[in-house]
Amino acid sequence: MAESAPEFAPRNPGAQLVDPALLPFLPMLYVAWADGDLSPEEMTAICRRLGDDCQSLLGPWLDPEQPPTAVELQQMLALIRQRTGELSAREKLTLTGLGLRLAQADDRQVSGEERQALVEIEEALGISGYEAARQMLATRRPAEPVEEVEPAFDVRAMQRLLDGQDHELRERLRRFLSRPELRRRDELSRGEYRERVLGWCRELAAEGFGALSYPTSCGGEDDAGRFIAVFETLAFGDLSLLVKFGVQFGLFGGSILSLGTARHHLRYLLRVGRLELPGCFAMTETGHGSNVHDLETVARYDPETEEFVLHTPHDGARKDYIGNAACHGRLATVFAQLEAGDDSHGVHAFLVPIREEDGRPSPGVSIEDCGEKMGLNGVDNGRLWFDNVRIPRLNLLDRFAQVAADGSYRSQIPSPSKRFFTMLGTLVGGRVSVALASLSAAKSALAIAVRYGSERRQFGPSGEAELKLLDYLTHQRRLMPPLATTYALHFALDDLRSEYVASSDLDRREVETLAAGLKAYATWHATETIQVCRECCGGQGYLAANRFADLKADTEIFTTFEGDNTVLLQLVAKSLLTGYQHHFGQMNFLGLVRFIADQATTAIAELNPVTTRLTHETHLRDREFHLGAFGWREQHLLATVARRLKKRIDDGMETSRAFIECQDHLMATARAHVERTVLASLTAAEESAADDLRRMLGLLGDLFALSRIESDRGWFLEQGYFEPSKAKAVRKLVNRLCREVRQQAVPLVEAFGIPQELLAAPIAR
Amino acid sequence: MAESAPEFAPRNPGAQLVDPALLPFLPMLYVAWADGDLSPEEMTAICRRLGDDCQSLLGPWLDPEQPPTAVELQQMLALIRQRTGELSAREKLTLTGLGLRLAQADDRQVSGEERQALVEIEEALGISGYEAARQMLATRRPAEPVEEVEPAFDVRAMQRLLDGQDHELRERLRRFLSRPELRRRDELSRGEYRERVLGWCRELAAEGFGALSYPTSCGGEDDAGRFIAVFETLAFGDLSLLVKFGVQFGLFGGSILSLGTARHHLRYLLRVGRLELPGCFAMTETGHGSNVHDLETVARYDPETEEFVLHTPHDGARKDYIGNAACHGRLATVFAQLEAGDDSHGVHAFLVPIREEDGRPSPGVSIEDCGEKMGLNGVDNGRLWFDNVRIPRLNLLDRFAQVAADGSYRSQIPSPSKRFFTMLGTLVGGRVSVALASLSAAKSALAIAVRYGSERRQFGPSGEAELKLLDYLTHQRRLMPPLATTYALHFALDDLRSEYVASSDLDRREVETLAAGLKAYATWHATETIQVCRECCGGQGYLAANRFADLKADTEIFTTFEGDNTVLLQLVAKSLLTGYQHHFGQMNFLGLVRFIADQATTAIAELNPVTTRLTHETHLRDREFHLGAFGWREQHLLATVARRLKKRIDDGMETSRAFIECQDHLMATARAHVERTVLASLTAAEESAADDLRRMLGLLGDLFALSRIESDRGWFLEQGYFEPSKAKAVRKLVNRLCREVRQQAVPLVEAFGIPQELLAAPIAR
Repeated sequence: MAESAPEFAPRNPGAQLVDPALLPFLPMLYVAWADGDLSPEEMTAICRRLGDDCQSLLGPWLDPEQPPTAVELQQMLALIRQRTGELSAREKLTLTGLGLRLAQADDRQVSGEERQALVEIEEALGISGYEAARQMLATRRPAEPVEEVEPAFDVRAMQRLLDGQDHELRERLRRFLSRPELRRRDELSRGEYRERVLGWCRELAAEGFGALSYPTSCGGEDDAGRFIAVFETLAFGDLSLLVKFGVQFGLFGGSILSLGTARHHLRYLLRVGRLELPGCFAMTETGHGSNVHDLETVARYDPETEEFVLHTPHDGARKDYIGNAACHGRLATVFAQLEAGDDSHGVHAFLVPIREEDGRPSPGVSIEDCGEKMGLNGVDNGRLWFDNVRIPRLNLLDRFAQVAADGSYRSQIPSPSKRFFTMLGTLVGGRVSVALASLSAAKSALAIAVRYGSERRQFGPSGEAELKLLDYLTHQRRLMPPLATTYALHFALDDLRSEYVASSDLDRREVETLAAGLKAYATWHATETIQVCRECCGGQGYLAANRFADLKADTEIFTTFEGDNTVLLQLVAKSLLTGYQHHFGQMNFLGLVRFIADQATTAIAELNPVTTRLTHETHLRDREFHLGAFGWREQHLLATVARRLKKRIDDGMETSRAFIECQDHLMATARAHVERTVLASLTAAEESAADDLRRMLGLLGDLFALSRIESDRGWFLEQGYFEPSKAKAVRKLVNRLCREVRQQAVPLVEAFGIPQELLAAPIAR
Repeated sequence: MAESAPEFAPRNPGAQLVDPALLPFLPMLYVAWADGDLSPEEMTAICRRLGDDCQSLLGPWLDPEQPPTAVELQQMLALIRQRTGELSAREKLTLTGLGLRLAQADDRQVSGEERQALVEIEEALGISGYEAARQMLATRRPAEPVEEVEPAFDVRAMQRLLDGQDHELRERLRRFLSRPELRRRDELSRGEYRERVLGWCRELAAEGFGALSYPTSCGGEDDAGRFIAVFETLAFGDLSLLVKFGVQFGLFGGSILSLGTARHHLRYLLRVGRLELPGCFAMTETGHGSNVHDLETVARYDPETEEFVLHTPHDGARKDYIGNAACHGRLATVFAQLEAGDDSHGVHAFLVPIREEDGRPSPGVSIEDCGEKMGLNGVDNGRLWFDNVRIPRLNLLDRFAQVAADGSYRSQIPSPSKRFFTMLGTLVGGRVSVALASLSAAKSALAIAVRYGSERRQFGPSGEAELKLLDYLTHQRRLMPPLATTYALHFALDDLRSEYVASSDLDRREVETLAAGLKAYATWHATETIQVCRECCGGQGYLAANRFADLKADTEIFTTFEGDNTVLLQLVAKSLLTGYQHHFGQMNFLGLVRFIADQATTAIAELNPVTTRLTHETHLRDREFHLGAFGWREQHLLATVARRLKKRIDDGMETSRAFIECQDHLMATARAHVERTVLASLTAAEESAADDLRRMLGLLGDLFALSRIESDRGWFLEQGYFEPSKAKAVRKLVNRLCREVRQQAVPLVEAFGIPQELLAAPIAR
C-alpha cells in the first residue's frame, strides 16, 4: 500500500508517561477516566476536595480540558496490574486499599493528607470500590468444563414412568428410528423427499407398526393405545414421516375401521396396514374446513345402477389439502352429502378409487398437487375433483347408516345430529395423536435448548469464566416453565389416551371434549415452546442442522389441522356449558339453554378472606391451593359466561350471535378447564410415583401451577381471588422454582428418552 | 362388487309413515328427537303433562323404547318444510306457532287441550322455540358478495403519511420490486437462489439504491435516512434480498464509512456501492455473539513489516454466520483484538481480503459454508478462519484509533470503554434498519390475513350465509390489536430513524438505547404478528404460495441478529438506570450505582384514588390516561428495580449477580419504556394529522394503549393503579374497539401501500 501514514506524531511506546508519585492514586484516576463519562463538573468537584499537596500532584490529571491519552490510560492500567503482581482479583480491596498496596509495593510513603484524599475521592466517585478494583485487575478466565449437578432422581426410572406400559414397543421404535438411513434429508427435492418418506412408511408397515389398531383378522393387534404410542414416539423423528404414517394408517385406515363394517375391513385393512393400498382421508374442502356439516361434495344414489355418483359441484367444493392425494393414494375415504331420491341425509363417508395401478387418476377424478408448503414437504398433499364418479353402493362406509338397493335409508342413530357427530368421532383418535405428537416435538426442542444452554456461555462477572446461559434468570424464565408444562401435559395426554382407548365409538363425548381441549392446548404449547427454544439458541438455532427449522415448520400446522384450535376451544366451552349432555354443533341449543339457567344459579365457592392474603411458601406450594384456584377459576368463568349468554338469549338475541359476543370469555373458560385437567393428571401421577420421582414431579407441578397462576394473575386479582401481596409472592416464588428446576434440567430432558441419533442437532451433543 | 347386501329390510321410501293428525305436534316431536339427547326421564315427564287425548295421540312417539327411525325423522322434517311452504326462516314463530300454522295449512282443527299441550311441551323442552323453529326451516344460504364498508378515511393520504418525505423514493422502489423477475423463487436450489439474489442486488446497486448513505464523492447521496427508507421498503419483498443488500451496503460498506477515514472511503466505497467489491462484516464468532468485548480473533501488529497479523487462535474464535462469506465476499471488515508490543488495545476493525478475484479463498483464509438455514437461504452465510494472515497497517479502520508505523497507539477517545462503544455504534444503523424491516414484514402478514379474513366465511347462524372470519370476536381479538400496534410502531420507528439520522457517531447514546429497545420490541412484534396471521389463515396460511412460510422463516432470526432481543432489553434497562449517562457494558458501574441511589428516592407520582376507579369511556379513551399509565408504570418499575439493585449491592453482592437476580424486573422496565415511547410517537403523529386520519389514528392509538394496558393489568392491579372494576371496563372496551377497527381493517392494510405483486399471496387477492 503506497498511501501516506495518517498525520499524527507517534509517541515512544516505551516512555514512562506516568509519574510514580501518583502510584496510590492510579486506581482512582484510571477508574475516573476509563469509563469516559465523568463530567467536567464532577472532576472539578473532586479536585476541590483535595488538600494543597494533593491538588498540585493530582490537579493536572483531573483537568477536563486535558484528559489522559489512550496510551497513558493503557500505561496506568499496565502499571497497576504489574505492581499488584499475583494479587488475586478475588481479594477484596477497595480502590483506596489497592492504591495503598501499590504504594507499599514501591516503598512509597503515603501521607495522612493523601490517605484522606484517597478516601474522599473514592467516596466522590460514588461507586463500589471493591468492584471497581476487581474489574481493573480482572482478565477473563477461560471456562473449565464443569459437570452439571448430579441428578436428584433416577433418570432411567423417570423415562420408564414416562414410557408407561408400552416401554418395549417404544424402545423398538427408537431403535428403528435411530437407523442412519432414517436421518433427515439434506437437500432432497420435494419429489425425492416424498418418495423417501413413502419408503420409510413401508418399512414401518413391514414391521407391523401401521396395523396395530386393526383387528387381528386384518393383520393387526386390535390395540389403538399401542398405535398411538407408536405415533407419539415417531414424532421424535422426521415429522413428514409421522404425518404420512398418520394419514395412511390412522385417518384412512382408521376411517375404514370406524365407519365401515366387517366387509370393508376384510376387503381393505390388510392391504392398508401393509401399505399395499395407499389411501386418503378426503374430508376438508377448499370452502369448508372446520365446518364439515356444510361440505358441498355430493354423493347421489342412483337406484338404476345401484351406484353412488360422487360430484364436485364447483371449485370451492374440491377436496383440498388431502394427504397422500398428490402422488401415492389409490383409494380415498370421501366425505360427501348423501342424497337419495328427494332426501338429503347429510354427510357420509364413501370409498372412492382415485388413482389407477399405473398412477394415473381414475376416470372422472382430477388431481392437483398442493405444491410447496411451509413444512411437511415429504407429504404429498393434493386436491381432488369428482366429475360424476360412479362407485358401487356398497362403497358407502355403512356402519352407522345404510342405503338399500332401492335407495331407502336406514340408520340405527335416528337423530341426524347425533349421527353426524358419531361419524365425526373418527376424528377424535387423530386429535389425541396430534396432541401427543406435538408434545414429543416440544420435548425435542427442549432437549436441544436445555443442553445448549447448559454448555453455552456468554458474558459474566469480570475475572471469572463467562456464565452458562441457563444460569441467567431470563433464560430460566423462558425455558423452565415450558419444561414443567411439558411434564404436566405428558401425564394429561397419557390419561387422555387411556380414556380414548377405553371409550366406545358410540359414546365418547367427554373424551371428545377432552381431546379437543388438550389438542388445542398441547399444540399451542408446542408452537410456543419450540419458538422460545429456538430463540434461546440464538443464531445456532437458526441453522437447519440444529433441527429447529424443521421442528418449527413441520409442527406449525398442528394448531390448524385435526380441528382449528380456536374452533376446538369453543367446542370445549359449549360442551362444558351443556355438562357434556349435548354435542357440539348447530343443533345443540336444546339442553344448552336449559343448562345455562342451572349454571347461572350454581353457587361458586365463596372466597376465603384469609387465603386470599396468604403468602407463605407452604401455602403457595400446596397442591390443594393450586387445584382450588384452577377449579374456582373454571367454575367462575363458566357460571359468568352462562349468565351472559342467558341474558342475551332472554333478550331475544340469536344463540349464534350471543356466542360470538362472548367468544373471548368462552375461550378463557375452555383454557381454564384444560389447565385444571392437566394439573389434576400431573397430581395423580405424582402421588403414585416413587419417592425421588415424586419429589421432582412435585417441583415441576408447583412450577407449572404457579407460573400459570402468575400469568393469569390479572384475572385472579380482578375477581378478588388474590390480594396484590399474594400475586407478588407468587411471582417471586416462580423465580425461585425456575432456579430449582434449572438444576435438574439436563436430567429432566434426558428422561424424555430421545436417542441422540434422533435429536440430530450438533448443539445438543 | 359381488358382495352381499347388508341385512336389513328396506322400507318403501315413498310410504307415508307419519299420521297427519300429528301435524301440529310435528315441530316439537322433531326437535325432541333430532338432537338425539333427550333422556328417557325427560320423555316420560313430557308425556305425563299431556291430557288423555293427547297422550294417546303422542304417546307412541314419545316412547324412549321406540324412537322414530331416521327415515321417520327425515319425513317429519320434510313434511314440516313442505307444509310451511314459502314461510321465511326469518318469520318469528315459536314451535307452538309453527305447529298451529301447519295445522291451519292442512285445515286441521286444534282442540283446546291440544293447544295447551303444545304450550306445555314447548316449555318442557326448555328451549328457545323461536330459534328451534328457525333452525328447522333453515337451509344455508349462499354468501352474496358483500362490499366491505366504505373507508372512513382517505386511504391514499394515509399511505402518503406513512411514506413520509421519501414517498417518491419508495414508489420508485415499489415499481422496481414489482418486476416479475423479482418474484419469489419456486424451487430453486440454494446455490441458484443465492446467485439470483446477488443478481437482484446488482440491479439495486445499478439504480443507486445501495450507495445512498455514502458521500457524494463515492457515488452516494450522503443520506442515511433515504438508505434506511429503501431498506424498509425492500422488506416488502424477498427477505434474502433485503439481508444481502443490508450486509453489503449497510454493514460492510457502513463499517468502512463509519470506522474508516477518507482514504478508505475513496479507495473502497465507490466499488462497494456498485457491488463491484462484495464484502462481509465479520464480527460474530462461534464462541462470542452478543459479547463482542470478549472476541478472540487477534490482530497483532508487526512493526518489522508494518503489518497486522490476523489470527484465529482456536475453532471457537472462527468468524461465524458471516453474510456474503460463503460465496461472494472478497473483502471483510474483521473485528479483532488489537495487540501491539505488550499492549492489548481491545476490539478494532480491520479490512482483510478473504477471497481472490477467481473466487478461491485468499492465502491463510479458510472458508466454510454455514449450510442450510431455517430461512434467508438466498444469503450465503459462512465461517472464516485466519491463519496468520498479514494485512497492511493502513487496513486498520482508523477513524477512532490509529497505530503508527512503530506500533505506537493513539486514539482521540482515551477511555477504552467509550472507544469500544463508539465503534459498536456502527451497529445502531443496523438495528434501526432491522426494526423497520421487521415491521414491513408484519405489515405484509397483516395485509394477507386481513384480506383473507374479510372474504373467507365459515359457520354462521342457520338460514343465513356463513360469517366472514373477521366478523368473529376471536378473529378480531387476534388481528386488530397487532394492526393497531403496527401503526403505532410505524410512527415510533419513523421517529427513531429521524433521530438516528440527526445524531452524530460520537454521541448517540439516547438513540442507541431507543434503537435497542425498539429493535427488540418491533422484531418480537413481527414474529408474533406473522404467527397469529398464519394461524388466522388456517391451512391456506401453510401453503408456501401464500407467503407465510417465507415471512416466518426469513424473519425468525430478526429477534436474534443485530443484537439478541433479551440482551438488548437489558441494555435498555441499564441505560435507563444511568439516565443515559453511561454506556452499556462491563465498565459502567461508575455512574450506575450513584444513579441508583438517586432513583431510589425519586418519588413516584401518588395514585389518585378517584381515577383508579373511573370506568367511563371518555376517561378510558383519554390519551392522557394512557400516557399517564404508561409513564407511571415505567417510573415505578425503574425506581423499584433501582432499589432492589441498590439493596443487593449495598449488601455486598457483585453488580453482575445483582443484575441477574433482577433480570425479569429489568426486562419489564425496558418494555414499559419502549411502550411509552411508542405511544408518545403515535400521539404526536395523530395530533399533526388531517382530520379523518387523526380520527383513525386516534382509534388505533386507543386500541394499542388499552390492549397493552389490558395485557399488563395484572401488574397495574398489583400496584393498586386500578380497581378491578376498571380492569374489567378496559377489557370490555378493547372488545368494542376491536370491532370498530375491524370495520376499517381492509383500508387500513391497503394504506400500507404494498403492491399486489409483492404480496404475491393468492389468498390476499
